[in-house]
Formats: sequence, structure tokens, C-alpha cells
Amino acid sequence: MEPCFLTASEAAARIREGRLTSERLVRSCLERIAVRDPDVKAWLHVDPRAAIAAAREADKQPARSRLHGLPFGVKDVIDTGDMPTTYNSANWQGYRPAKDAACVGVVRASGAVILGKTDTVEFAAAGRKAATRHPRNAGHTPGGSSSGSGAAVADHQVPLAFGTQTGGSHIRPASFNGIYGLKPTWGSVSREGAKVYANSLDTIGWYGRSVADLALVAEAFRLDGVGATAPVAAPQITVALCRTPYWPKIEPAGEAAFAAAAERLGRAGIAVRELALPAAFGELYDAQTTIMFGEGRAAFLDEYLIQGARLGPDFVARAENARGIGPRQMIEAHDLAAACRREFEALVGADVVLAPAAPGEAPEGLHTTGDHVFNAMWTLLHVPCLGVPCTTGSKGLPVGIQLVGPRYSDARLMAVAEVLAPVIDAEGREDRPGAA
Amino acid sequence: MEPCFLTASEAAARIREGRLTSERLVRSCLERIAVRDPDVKAWLHVDPRAAIAAAREADKQPARSRLHGLPFGVKDVIDTGDMPTTYNSANWQGYRPAKDAACVGVVRASGAVILGKTDTVEFAAAGRKAATRHPRNAGHTPGGSSSGSGAAVADHQVPLAFGTQTGGSHIRPASFNGIYGLKPTWGSVSREGAKVYANSLDTIGWYGRSVADLALVAEAFRLDGVGATAPVAAPQITVALCRTPYWPKIEPAGEAAFAAAAERLGRAGIAVRELALPAAFGELYDAQTTIMFGEGRAAFLDEYLIQGARLGPDFVARAENARGIGPRQMIEAHDLAAACRREFEALVGADVVLAPAAPGEAPEGLHTTGDHVFNAMWTLLHVPCLGVPCTTGSKGLPVGIQLVGPRYSDARLMAVAEVLAPVIDAEGREDRPGAA
Repeated sequence: MEPCFLTASEAAARIREGRLTSERLVRSCLERIAVRDPDVKAWLHVDPRAAIAAAREADKQPARSRLHGLPFGVKDVIDTGDMPTTYNSANWQGYRPAKDAACVGVVRASGAVILGKTDTVEFAAAGRKAATRHPRNAGHTPGGSSSGSGAAVADHQVPLAFGTQTGGSHIRPASFNGIYGLKPTWGSVSREGAKVYANSLDTIGWYGRSVADLALVAEAFRLDGVGATAPVAAPQITVALCRTPYWPKIEPAGEAAFAAAAERLGRAGIAVRELALPAAFGELYDAQTTIMFGEGRAAFLDEYLIQGARLGPDFVARAENARGIGPRQMIEAHDLAAACRREFEALVGADVVLAPAAPGEAPEGLHTTGDHVFNAMWTLLHVPCLGVPCTTGSKGLPVGIQLVGPRYSDARLMAVAEVLAPVIDAEGREDRPGAA
Repeated sequence: MEPCFLTASEAAARIREGRLTSERLVRSCLERIAVRDPDVKAWLHVDPRAAIAAAREADKQPARSRLHGLPFGVKDVIDTGDMPTTYNSANWQGYRPAKDAACVGVVRASGAVILGKTDTVEFAAAGRKAATRHPRNAGHTPGGSSSGSGAAVADHQVPLAFGTQTGGSHIRPASFNGIYGLKPTWGSVSREGAKVYANSLDTIGWYGRSVADLALVAEAFRLDGVGATAPVAAPQITVALCRTPYWPKIEPAGEAAFAAAAERLGRAGIAVRELALPAAFGELYDAQTTIMFGEGRAAFLDEYLIQGARLGPDFVARAENARGIGPRQMIEAHDLAAACRREFEALVGADVVLAPAAPGEAPEGLHTTGDHVFNAMWTLLHVPCLGVPCTTGSKGLPVGIQLVGPRYSDARLMAVAEVLAPVIDAEGREDRPGAA
């Protein structure tokens, strides 16, 4: 099997055992990119020579972490000191930051090889869409704004990649692409050097092709309890099925995935119960919109003043507060979010919640990246969300679900997901594109 | 009078009227720096030729805002595309960011002339102290971490400067230096390109020598309601005197300033009442500490992994979570803060709160920058705080107070402060160092 088809954790094990080198793995990914990326268009920048040189260097050095030697993709709203960072904005083509963003610094210092920059919706917010196509059907979006990272990991072009989420930009593409994704607890990973959109929402996450892959990266970020959490056994787990107040937006493919996940868990003997959230949670979508636009006003002010008419209308509207969001709305949105954070944790306790990750399959066309209606609430609640692949819809595209835990329960969420994922993701990896 | 002694708003008026050029003003500030900075040591970087060139350019162009042509100092934890940014860290000497931080971009695009970078506590957090001395007594700290910005504005070396606050780093130096400072509502000014310390706390603010100066900058940042708020008349104002639960930490000079402010307001016929905060507010100091260290853990992880032993022990301790802060503490701290935010606004209504800005005068020596015990609560509450000079203590150093309003009430807070400041700051500017 070509090394590019290995999951990150499989590749890491082989590197540790001396059965695989970083150079061999990186070359395999680069070959996969050369073959596939003309169709998928996941990358805005790849420098094969630099990547191979970094891999060789990693091979010479003692392992700095379990990430050592693994190729890593970086969403192009995150600064890299040795590669351009364009935010997919016409005004920032060729821009070269002087140093790595904090998250890039962490994985690079942990031995990862930064393979390149992945395409994104402009500023991870609005404006220009990524050129990236769904790896399984080029007529469809891979989702966004973490379009390139989601597609590249799904298409075996890179085993790990960073995305970001302000609305649903990380977990929705995980669902559309049939991959795993972790959006950790808000505030537990530094966003320094990542483009700001909304202070209270922006979260950096990562993609992999298994729960173990996500845990590798979580270990590098020293998320609370990672490495110190005992494995969880199935009988200890109760899964709360939460359709959320946004269930009327579910599509048949999303409904089927949710039902399949519940059915598979029940069949495997995992305790399952229903969780109906109080009415206030039905207002979180609007609260997230208020905060996203209200804080986006400050985020794009400098671009607005500097770029003037060259800045796209979506960003002009944000900077000019076209929605007229005022103090009362901002305060109400923040306070509702805070009240629901407490209430969610009181309701859920130590259980894990299973919720839709997207309405259904990836939409057709590249003019949209899909709807974040099943993500916005969780982003605003600051809780960790872990995307797990589940079914294949009628268009032949993947549909996932997400597992959600209380704030700062990332380690336990991953431990629980380690048990649940083989049950939920029962169609197996062989069903996904490009698998060997 | 030398132009450097003008307040920002006085200078702006003269520039608008054609009675002063930016070049003349910048040259006057540079001369002041040349004379005074060998003693005060406020600056880490000033390039006189570049500043004069920028001023000449401003003089040629139509005014872009009321900030046009005004010199501006930038705390050296905030990126500048044309000057080094060192964070006052040994590891970052000579570092040159590739672009301006968002806040620098906003004032530069508004016509301000970036005069240079001001000294700071390392990463605005811990470790190395600034070399800056109190302009009125070199044996004392000017406060910190915004040490250089506070001292430079007080010493008439620059009319305006950026600071930052995570604990009390902006409002405390305003008090110690006898100047005005605004810490706006959290989230209303983009922190992109400023060193991150704690996600939920970090706030960029600015210093001036009058309320009108602060309003000039607030206008450039388009803070909610600025420019659209009707002037407030004294009879409309009720001031709530709030000693806060931390009053046992007040020193005689701080107590005298608080009493003088109350007495002056009463004498001027301003309605004054007492505000005692509920007991929960007494726990906010510890909650702020928990969040500062808990989020600081993520903030310094990349430095920790990259710099290794070259990183100072204060930052190693944060990255290694030496305080052992866990999920329960973080959640409790966040939820307490959220509950107190609501409660504060319910208690205060539309009134403005008058509270201590620091325990007393600036401490002796440069080994400390003072105590943030009267600031931490307000930072965590996300409310706007406006520092106003008030009295002179027994050591001959200034002592201020702060005016605090509900979240997003920055515009009204400034309108109220415009009325209250001449009453509270009754000793007048002539009493402060270096005034003409």
C-alpha cells in the first residue's frame, strides 16, 4: 500500500518502528497530489522540494512527538513563516508572513512536516469561495470554509490538516468528505497568527482519518487530560441523541445518517437516550449570527480602511455594520450563550451527545459550501465537537455525525469516540474514495 | 508652546485649521524624546527619519480622519510592518513582522503617524520588565505591562499610544502616570497581530491626555455609537461609587483619590450614590487569575516548544500548567464571569461607575509594575474602563480613578467622562510633569 493511504496514526507507528521514513511518506503524498490535485484543487501552495528537505531533516532527528515526520496541511488563513499566506483574497496574493502561527509552530516543533497551504473561503468568512471540488464528485462542494483541508485529507493527499470554525467551517466539511475532525474547546488552542473573524467563536481544529489521528494532534497541543485519560469501555458510555432545535432543516440523507448511527449504537449494546434541548437553544443560531457579524465588524475594519473598494462587498458590509447590530443585541447574544453553556452541561453531565453534523450530503456546485445550521450552536457553546463519518447518501457522497461533549472534555470525548467510531463508521474505510 | 505639549485633540484641531503640520508636531515629539528618553526609556524603537517622512506624506494628503497627522506610539507586543517587534523578549530581538496588526492598520489608514514601539513587560505577561522609569520619579515604575506607552504619553513624548490589558496592564499605568486611558469593551477592537496571552481577557486600549483624545481614536475604530451619541449634561448623570470587594487592598493615596473624586463630584452637583457589589464579585479576581493562567497555557505552548530552555521560567510554568488548572476551574471561572456580567449591568443600569484604578501611587523600583487587584475584575467583565487622573499622592506621583460602564457603552462612557473629567481631574494639567 502506498504510504499516503495510511492514517496518520498508522504512519506514525511505522515511522516509530523504523518501517517508514518521513521522506517516503511525504513523497507518496506529493505523488498523490500531483495525480489528484489538478481535479480536486485542494492546495494553494505546495513546494515539493522544501517538503522533501523538511522530511529528510525529520528523518535525521530523534522523534520529538508522535507527530514526528507526519505531513500536515495548513488552511491558508493560518500564517506560515516559509510559505505564502493568501487568505484566498485577491489583495493578499504572494503575502509572506514573517513567522508561523502558533498552531503551526506547535506541530512543526513536534516534528510534523508542513506540506503546504490549503484553499479556503476568503478570510474563512465570505467573499471568494475555494476552487476545491469534492474528491468523490467534482460537481459538488467539499464544504467550507476549510474546503482544501477537508478534501485533501479525504483524498489521501495528506493525513492531517488544520481547519478553522466560526460557524460550521470545520465539522461540516468533515461530514461532507467522510473524514474525522476535532473542533476542540474554544480557547484551548492559540489562534495567534490565524486570521481573526469573530473573537468569541473562532476555533482552530484538525482533520484526520481516524479518532487516533485526532488524538495524535491533541497530544501535541497538550489538551487537558490527553494522555492521562483512561480508556473508556462501551458499558460505561451513554450516548444522548440530540436532534437539536434545528432538526426541521435536516435532509433525508442527514436523517438517515442520524438514524443509522443510533441504530448501530443500539445494536452494539451502547446505552442510548434522547436529549431534547430547552427552547432557548433554538435561539442560539441567531445569537451566533449576531456575534459573528457583530465581531466581524471589528475584524475587517483594517482591511476595509486599507483596501477600500478592492475589498469585496461581503467584507464592506461587515465593516460598515450593514445589519445594524447594536449593543443590546450583542449583550443578549453573549448572555444567552453563557446561560446555555451552563444549561447544556447540567443536562448532559458526563455523557456524550450525538448530533447531526450537516443537513445532508455536500450540495451540488461550488457557489455554496453548505449550511452551518447544525454547527453554529455548538461553536457558540464553545464545546468540543468530533466529526465521525457514518453513511453514504443517494448521491454517493458521505454523511457524518458529530459527537459533542462538555467544555474542556476533549480528552474524554476522544476516548469515547475511540469506542463509538468503529460502530458508527461501520461502512468502513474501504468504502471511501481512494482507499487501497 | 512646543506642539508636543498639545493634547491629541488640540493638535488635531490645529492641523485641521492649517495652524500646525504633522511634520512640525512629529519633530517636536522627536525632540522631546531625544531630551527625555535617555532617562525615561519609554521606547524600544524610534526611527526619526521614517517618522518625519511619514509626517510629510500626511501633510501632503487630504485628511483621512481626525487622527490625520497625529503621532502614535505602539506597545511592542503589537505587530508593525515597518518596525521591529520584540515583545521585549530576548528571543525576538530584531524580529520584523510582515504586516501591521489590525489596530495599527486602522490608525495608520486613518492618517496617524506611527512614531515607534514602546517598552513592555515581556509578551505583556511576565518575565522581563520594561526598562521604562516613571517620568516624574525615575526611582519608580510607570506601571505595566504598558509601561512605555503610559510613560511616553505622560511625558509628552507622543500624544497617543496603544496599550493592552489582560489583568490591569492598561488602566493601572494610566493611573500611575496621570493620563487618560480607554480599555474598550472586549471584542470591539480586533486583536489580530497583537501577542496573545488570554483569549477571554486580552483587550487593546489607548492612552491620551484628555477624554477628547480618547474619543478621537474611538472614532477611528468606529466603536458603537461614537459620533452618534448626544452630549450628556451634568444633571442627567448619576455616578455610582464602587469601592469593589477589593477595597481592603486600597492604600492611603488610592483612598484619598477615591474620596477626592467623590467629594469633587458632589461639590459640582453631580448625583452620587454608593454601589455595593454582591459577594460573587469578590471571587472575580481569582476567576480572572484562573482564566489568565488557564488560557496562557495555550498561548505560550509554541514558544515553549520552539525556544525550550531559552524561554523564561514564567512562561515555562504557564505552558506546563504549573498551577494545575483543570476543566472544572475553567468552567466555574467562565460561568461566574458570565453571571456577574449580567448582574453588573442589571445593578448599574445606564449609570457610570467610579472605581479605584490602582491601590495607590506607583510603587518604588522597577522590579514590580504594581498590583492589578482593582483591574482584574473589570477586565474579566469585558466592560469599558476609562482612566481619569485625580490627585497627587504623598510621594508626588499621580493617582487616578476609573469610570466603568456596561458592555458596549463605550460611546456613552466617553460622553459622560467628558463632563466628569474636568471635575475629577481638578488639579489640572499644569500640575502634571513637563506641561508648558
